[in-house]
Amino acid sequence: MEGRILPGVDLDAVAAGLFAGLAEIGADGVGITRETYGAGEGAAFDLVEETARRHGLIAVRDAAANLAITLPATPDGLSPTPDRPCVVVASHLDSVPQGGNFDGAAGVVAGLLSLLRMQADGLAPRRPPRLMAIRGEESAWYGKAYIGSSALFGRLSADDLALKHRSGGHVLAEAMAAAGADLARIRAGERLLDPAAVAGYFELHIEQGPVLVARTLPTAVVTGIRGNVRHARVLCRGEAGHSGAVPRWLRRDAVLAMAELMARLDEHWRVLQEQGLDLVVTFGIVGTNPAEHAISRIPGEAAFSFEVRSQSRDTLEAFYHLMRTEARAIERARKVEFVFDRRLDSQPARMDEGMVKRLLALSGRLGLPVETVPSGAGHDAAIFANEGVPSAMIFIRNDKGSHNPEERMDMADFRAGAELLHLALCEATGGEVAA
Amino acid sequence: MEGRILPGVDLDAVAAGLFAGLAEIGADGVGITRETYGAGEGAAFDLVEETARRHGLIAVRDAAANLAITLPATPDGLSPTPDRPCVVVASHLDSVPQGGNFDGAAGVVAGLLSLLRMQADGLAPRRPPRLMAIRGEESAWYGKAYIGSSALFGRLSADDLALKHRSGGHVLAEAMAAAGADLARIRAGERLLDPAAVAGYFELHIEQGPVLVARTLPTAVVTGIRGNVRHARVLCRGEAGHSGAVPRWLRRDAVLAMAELMARLDEHWRVLQEQGLDLVVTFGIVGTNPAEHAISRIPGEAAFSFEVRSQSRDTLEAFYHLMRTEARAIERARKVEFVFDRRLDSQPARMDEGMVKRLLALSGRLGLPVETVPSGAGHDAAIFANEGVPSAMIFIRNDKGSHNPEERMDMADFRAGAELLHLALCEATGGEVAA
Repeated sequence: MEGRILPGVDLDAVAAGLFAGLAEIGADGVGITRETYGAGEGAAFDLVEETARRHGLIAVRDAAANLAITLPATPDGLSPTPDRPCVVVASHLDSVPQGGNFDGAAGVVAGLLSLLRMQADGLAPRRPPRLMAIRGEESAWYGKAYIGSSALFGRLSADDLALKHRSGGHVLAEAMAAAGADLARIRAGERLLDPAAVAGYFELHIEQGPVLVARTLPTAVVTGIRGNVRHARVLCRGEAGHSGAVPRWLRRDAVLAMAELMARLDEHWRVLQEQGLDLVVTFGIVGTNPAEHAISRIPGEAAFSFEVRSQSRDTLEAFYHLMRTEARAIERARKVEFVFDRRLDSQPARMDEGMVKRLLALSGRLGLPVETVPSGAGHDAAIFANEGVPSAMIFIRNDKGSHNPEERMDMADFRAGAELLHLALCEATGGEVAA
Repeated sequence: MEGRILPGVDLDAVAAGLFAGLAEIGADGVGITRETYGAGEGAAFDLVEETARRHGLIAVRDAAANLAITLPATPDGLSPTPDRPCVVVASHLDSVPQGGNFDGAAGVVAGLLSLLRMQADGLAPRRPPRLMAIRGEESAWYGKAYIGSSALFGRLSADDLALKHRSGGHVLAEAMAAAGADLARIRAGERLLDPAAVAGYFELHIEQGPVLVARTLPTAVVTGIRGNVRHARVLCRGEAGHSGAVPRWLRRDAVLAMAELMARLDEHWRVLQEQGLDLVVTFGIVGTNPAEHAISRIPGEAAFSFEVRSQSRDTLEAFYHLMRTEARAIERARKVEFVFDRRLDSQPARMDEGMVKRLLALSGRLGLPVETVPSGAGHDAAIFANEGVPSAMIFIRNDKGSHNPEERMDMADFRAGAELLHLALCEATGGEVAA
């Protein structure tokens, strides 16, 4: 796709125009903000839909307000059946507050470029390609990720729909209704898309970590998506007291108990990883109680979040069990109590082995790295994969991580990834491979 | 003093009336609040002064708005000289916000009872006893403790006087001026009391920890007052990142670095204490940055307070050095940075050996425990001791710690401690011992 100008369409110009338009929509003075089921995400959807239509593609919204786009040559891609399944290429257009421009959007733009190229090349693939812009992938707004793809498969619960916006104001269902979603069908748990009618799922996404940069890989193929187990808040309860007046043997220091638990789990993590297990552990939110803490007061309370991620369900369970066991040991030794809120699970997903192999073969043909990486972050691909849809992901190198304004994707890396995606989509849909 | 009714004065009734009056002054709906150089402390000073005058004692305020009371038989106690030194018995009347009624006040009431008893007994001691209610002992209001006693010895700096009230509104100098203090003399660093004119200093105080309760001792004699070294805020700087996407080898997790430092220091503390060193260590305030922390974000920042207390300057220095050394090791290993704010020192103080021995002997005579304890909390006695005044303290058993509304002192314990104080004061002033 390197600077290629097809009859009637300059793909680089389309990409540049979309990225510029999306940046303008999201500009918040610091970074990019396109709110889940909010104004920014809505404007981004309008921009992509309008661009697709201008180039002759067909675009519709589903009952969850997701956007689906297909070729006029294969309009049945918009209502696929198990007999005539489609191939989905998808990503999201929302962002975290003060995030970057490419997290999510790069995948939608790459998918649109591929459809435009098929259209320009006059392809009418046997399996209709279906580009989807999926709503609400980011958990930053309602505390839940994959809202649009969960709705797609009838998997939004009443509790999910009642989740409060981070501002504490309205709830998710209100924002969805305002964006045009059909709440009655969603509440009924109706499947808006039959997984059996999807022959495959592709998602191109910037890597949200530093691995491709560190390994100098412009692209890589994803083997699996880590799941996680979380507690939003674990409270360690000890006993407050005067910091000078209570000797060690009478203390029940909540901070030292918490620190010991963290240090023990960090050491377990180190050892398990050396044994080859896939595992990351994070205590992202930590704090004593501002209503009562003081320099000269033994902390009677300390709260922290807990998250473990792994590609393996067994590893997740094993580490979670270890955490609870260590917590109990510390409770006994230090006379404190750990109070756990609701355990939240997000299942890991394996990418389809055959699709991974094909992506690696095509990478080799394009002179791109024949390399795989796990995805530490979650993606809509995990939802599709866990619905039984064969799924695959392409990662694009990205400096400075994601979820911050410093996010950096090189356009040359993007073009390479978009080319890889296009070849894979042509193969999977049964169109020609424009090698 | 057990229920004793002397000619013209029922000491139990005086004590009960004072404690009831002080509770009424400080009642805040939750506990007791008598603000340093504020309305509550001022009303408490007025109550004590008025009570003393009603019983024929002499009361004056000094240039720091401290209250001094003596017998009409020894009025030169109010202006002692090195040739004719006084013996000070003192404590404070301010409280922390939502504190208890007895922290500080018990010592002033006990001292007043002793002077009333000398007065009723017709004593005219060779060394004038001088009861002092000292201003501003609690650091909760301006971040600095011992304000009144520091002013007494010309040791309030311009920085101290400019300390902001915890509300962020006015500064200390304004509150002192409003309470009647002579700021010109205080700013000049004038000594309002010559330490050489004080033959001894006694302070009765509730224990602020649980040791006397745990050891079932109604009273004990204090051997020394712990000093401390503090940092109000140590910032650990790592690097934020997506919790799923950054592998262990590329992480710079500020929380795990902080937890390791705490766990290492906790272990050093345990070992040093087993070697017999006097030491307590507290991280009272801990937190990630609410502006950016999230469950799924590797914490790029964590801040904490640090405090070590000991009766020994050498131990304070050694532990502080250990803390900085461990911090440097963790900085190297985890690629984080610890940023320390200003180091704050409060010197430990030894109580006078001869006075401690006399208090123990008198305890034995009264059938009270012949037991010593260190004071973990700071007291005005430390200021007097470090000015070279031979000083001693009596602790009264107190359940539920101090600096909270649950503080509990049994009146029988108070009477026992007040009796011990009275005997010691009679001895030290050269009055008779009413054995």
